[in-house]
Amino acid sequence: MNITQHLQRNALHNPDCESTIFGDRVRNWGETRERVARLAGALRSLGIASGESVAILSLNSDRYLEYLFAVPWADAVVNPVNIRWSPGEIAYSLLDSHTSMLFVDDAFAPMLPALRAEVPGLRTVVHCGDGPTPEGMLDYERLIAEHPPVDDARRSGEALAGIFYTGGTTGHPKGVMLSHANLVVSAMAAAAAGEFLEADGRTLHAAPMFHLADLFTVLIRNILGGTHVIVPFFDPATVAQAIEKHQVTDTLLVPTMIQMLIDAPGVDDADLRSLRRLIYGASPISDALLSRAAVALPGVRFTQAYGMTELAPMATFLRPEEHADPVLRRSAGRAGPNVEVRIVDTDDNEVASGVVGEVVVRGGNVMLGYWNRPAETADALRGGWMHTGDGGYMDERGYVFLVDRIKDMIVSGAENVYSAEVENALATHPAVAQCAVIGVPDPELGERVHAVVVLFPGAAATHEELRAHCKTLIAGYKAPRTSEFVEAMPLSGAGKILKRELRAKYWPAAGRGIG
Amino acid sequence: MNITQHLQRNALHNPDCESTIFGDRVRNWGETRERVARLAGALRSLGIASGESVAILSLNSDRYLEYLFAVPWADAVVNPVNIRWSPGEIAYSLLDSHTSMLFVDDAFAPMLPALRAEVPGLRTVVHCGDGPTPEGMLDYERLIAEHPPVDDARRSGEALAGIFYTGGTTGHPKGVMLSHANLVVSAMAAAAAGEFLEADGRTLHAAPMFHLADLFTVLIRNILGGTHVIVPFFDPATVAQAIEKHQVTDTLLVPTMIQMLIDAPGVDDADLRSLRRLIYGASPISDALLSRAAVALPGVRFTQAYGMTELAPMATFLRPEEHADPVLRRSAGRAGPNVEVRIVDTDDNEVASGVVGEVVVRGGNVMLGYWNRPAETADALRGGWMHTGDGGYMDERGYVFLVDRIKDMIVSGAENVYSAEVENALATHPAVAQCAVIGVPDPELGERVHAVVVLFPGAAATHEELRAHCKTLIAGYKAPRTSEFVEAMPLSGAGKILKRELRAKYWPAAGRGIG
Repeated sequence: MNITQHLQRNALHNPDCESTIFGDRVRNWGETRERVARLAGALRSLGIASGESVAILSLNSDRYLEYLFAVPWADAVVNPVNIRWSPGEIAYSLLDSHTSMLFVDDAFAPMLPALRAEVPGLRTVVHCGDGPTPEGMLDYERLIAEHPPVDDARRSGEALAGIFYTGGTTGHPKGVMLSHANLVVSAMAAAAAGEFLEADGRTLHAAPMFHLADLFTVLIRNILGGTHVIVPFFDPATVAQAIEKHQVTDTLLVPTMIQMLIDAPGVDDADLRSLRRLIYGASPISDALLSRAAVALPGVRFTQAYGMTELAPMATFLRPEEHADPVLRRSAGRAGPNVEVRIVDTDDNEVASGVVGEVVVRGGNVMLGYWNRPAETADALRGGWMHTGDGGYMDERGYVFLVDRIKDMIVSGAENVYSAEVENALATHPAVAQCAVIGVPDPELGERVHAVVVLFPGAAATHEELRAHCKTLIAGYKAPRTSEFVEAMPLSGAGKILKRELRAKYWPAAGRGIG
Repeated sequence: MNITQHLQRNALHNPDCESTIFGDRVRNWGETRERVARLAGALRSLGIASGESVAILSLNSDRYLEYLFAVPWADAVVNPVNIRWSPGEIAYSLLDSHTSMLFVDDAFAPMLPALRAEVPGLRTVVHCGDGPTPEGMLDYERLIAEHPPVDDARRSGEALAGIFYTGGTTGHPKGVMLSHANLVVSAMAAAAAGEFLEADGRTLHAAPMFHLADLFTVLIRNILGGTHVIVPFFDPATVAQAIEKHQVTDTLLVPTMIQMLIDAPGVDDADLRSLRRLIYGASPISDALLSRAAVALPGVRFTQAYGMTELAPMATFLRPEEHADPVLRRSAGRAGPNVEVRIVDTDDNEVASGVVGEVVVRGGNVMLGYWNRPAETADALRGGWMHTGDGGYMDERGYVFLVDRIKDMIVSGAENVYSAEVENALATHPAVAQCAVIGVPDPELGERVHAVVVLFPGAAATHEELRAHCKTLIAGYKAPRTSEFVEAMPLSGAGKILKRELRAKYWPAAGRGIG
């Protein structure tokens, strides 16, 4: 089992089938195989060693996909960099992973001087953008043209496939080590579950390709055959156009992207009827948004996937038909094939159904560990289970209901308040476009329930109105005691709201907000 | 990844869904889980050690399925015995695998004295039949009633799951060692391919459950959820009744069974419309039989799976729609997800497309090796590829066309003759019900093409007529030079024609016919 195998299979079985569509550039599987084999040849002749990390810092493109397969083909390890990070964070991840080779596109080429200054070991930079190749960088197409194809190294299943730095919501980046088997098992399970992508369909990659959620759909699509349609980044108009023009059948978006897509002016005019499936993840979807999305995208089947990079990435999923149930659609669904999920207390004992604890996961999808962090690896994987840091409970039929990140739970007075529950209540207010609920210091309560809210353009609401609205839906002690109104939320590369940043101004640097 | 996991998942997610139907006995997943956990408890209290082999010699039943999961649940290793074997062959396999515990049903209980005499280490025999428990055996239901459930051992993916003795067509039985990962990866790939069983359907187990082909469908069904309908053995009337009564959606049969089913008197009266998918394997299907089956079973989608026990068991498969192509339907299809297939010459070099060589396979499905046979393991797995012993060629799109077992190829004069090609020609003669073509000694040619033929009841044909018919379809040197007419073919447990036995009377004991 290795991630290149399905590319090989598609190239043998359907060489003339379109593999990638990026703008006006269309390739077929035979071409993609040849280009990947040549790029791998270039990596080898550039001295990349077995098991060495090769990074990429780029918007989405067909070349990003080629990179993802050329690197393991050359017996090396992918290291897709979070494009939302600062040069300092990126430099940290490159240094930590001993990366000497980086692919960079036009959008990020200007960051190179700063990176080179901080990462002296960065020997080779390949320009994979469409503009002219900057001085001091190798030209991507020239590497492909000038190197003969090499054989696929076909790393074994347990071998390291990639180092995926995470930490956007939790502080210092950590390199999650995933094996080929981790990635293939997870994608195979999704393909076997039959609820993710259409057989022989066309998958749109609009979510950032550095993130494992999108890589997951790359691998599922490769297993199922079919075509990748790629846009540089998420933009509602671009996404709508790509769906219509290329008859996209499925895509993965995070809820904030779904919201932007259906709210965007002019999207109503696009013909999106080819779209049959939409996978969403990274955060729960509010009932309000789901209802609006079902109207705006009729005929689309929604599947929720819950997981994290450390799980390559899927733990549970919620099937389309389960969204019809008002209780179940508040859940993250149930364990996928080959995944075991439990809820445990702080002593790692399994709790009864209905009781909140930490979600832990076991299975062939669980990461090898954190790169160079044996203590954190041992802690995260204690007892053989990946400790997700997510708080939740399981019902007696295995549905997992997430209540919060363990560290996002608010202890207000003597009561536990789950921010997700408050956010769900807030989101049903017609003026609320986005919201996040955090605990902030309070002299009487210890922590106070505090709402951060983005209103719809032109809409208005006061704190008192929002609090009153919430109290009609949830217990009074859970309703926000204070609110602040902001223009936009700080988002992670995966589109998650960065509560750490929201909390920062309320908590001292050493406080829980940073942990 | 372990084979018990999907049972656990079904019991948690759908405890009330029917798990097994055997005659009038119906259980649900919650019950099956409880019974399996109790039976595993019984095995442990009976002293079965971790990794120890526990055998079963039984017709199909719901208890057979429980055995298959209780044994790994107890941290032991399954050893399903070929029910077509003689007591001597069975004793050999029990001795070879150091088996001390055997499950046996009413059909095979009479064989016990002979087995006990040859296998002194056989300490414990569990009677899993429905009749009264014979003296000296433990009662299956009593073991379940008297032992509390234990936790699933959840052996790790690479751990041994079973020893599957094979050799029905090649002589001395060899124990094929398959890991949990081998079995799960293979079943997951089939589920991901989407062409094998219906989601949430009902699978009929009529092919013998000791054989990996049927176990394959047990595991796929467990991954997809749904119900197992089990009959003790293949019988056309029983199968037709079970399909109608229990609304079976899919099943696996070998071509000889398909033929018996559609030829059986009275089957026309049964309502088989619930049947949507039929997997066949073990041998290619003739065009003639496929045409007749398509008429007798309208609406059924046929998928061919090609593989062997050593491949857990699938290498390639032919999709339903590919059967419409007259060329492709003579192939065994193409590699499944996660499987690599090549054709190599006698020096293990890959040959060009269209050139006949040996089919070799690599992937997560390839066996750990042969039990206690390091030399044969090393030979079979040389270079990291499983050498199937099957001769064939691959076209430029990856379709594998099997021509013969390497050792079944006939060298007649200076020409290579592939028996399968001759058999395909013979099978189109309206009088021919079954046929097998072998090489027999010939003073002039070295080997002579010889046909063994079963005619339809009431039909007649002479050797000269058959030879003339073949010469209209294939080159004259390939047409049988001699024919013999028999009442029935010797069949292996998997329903394969035993050419070894057909050849035995023509070749001396040390000759190729035994190899």
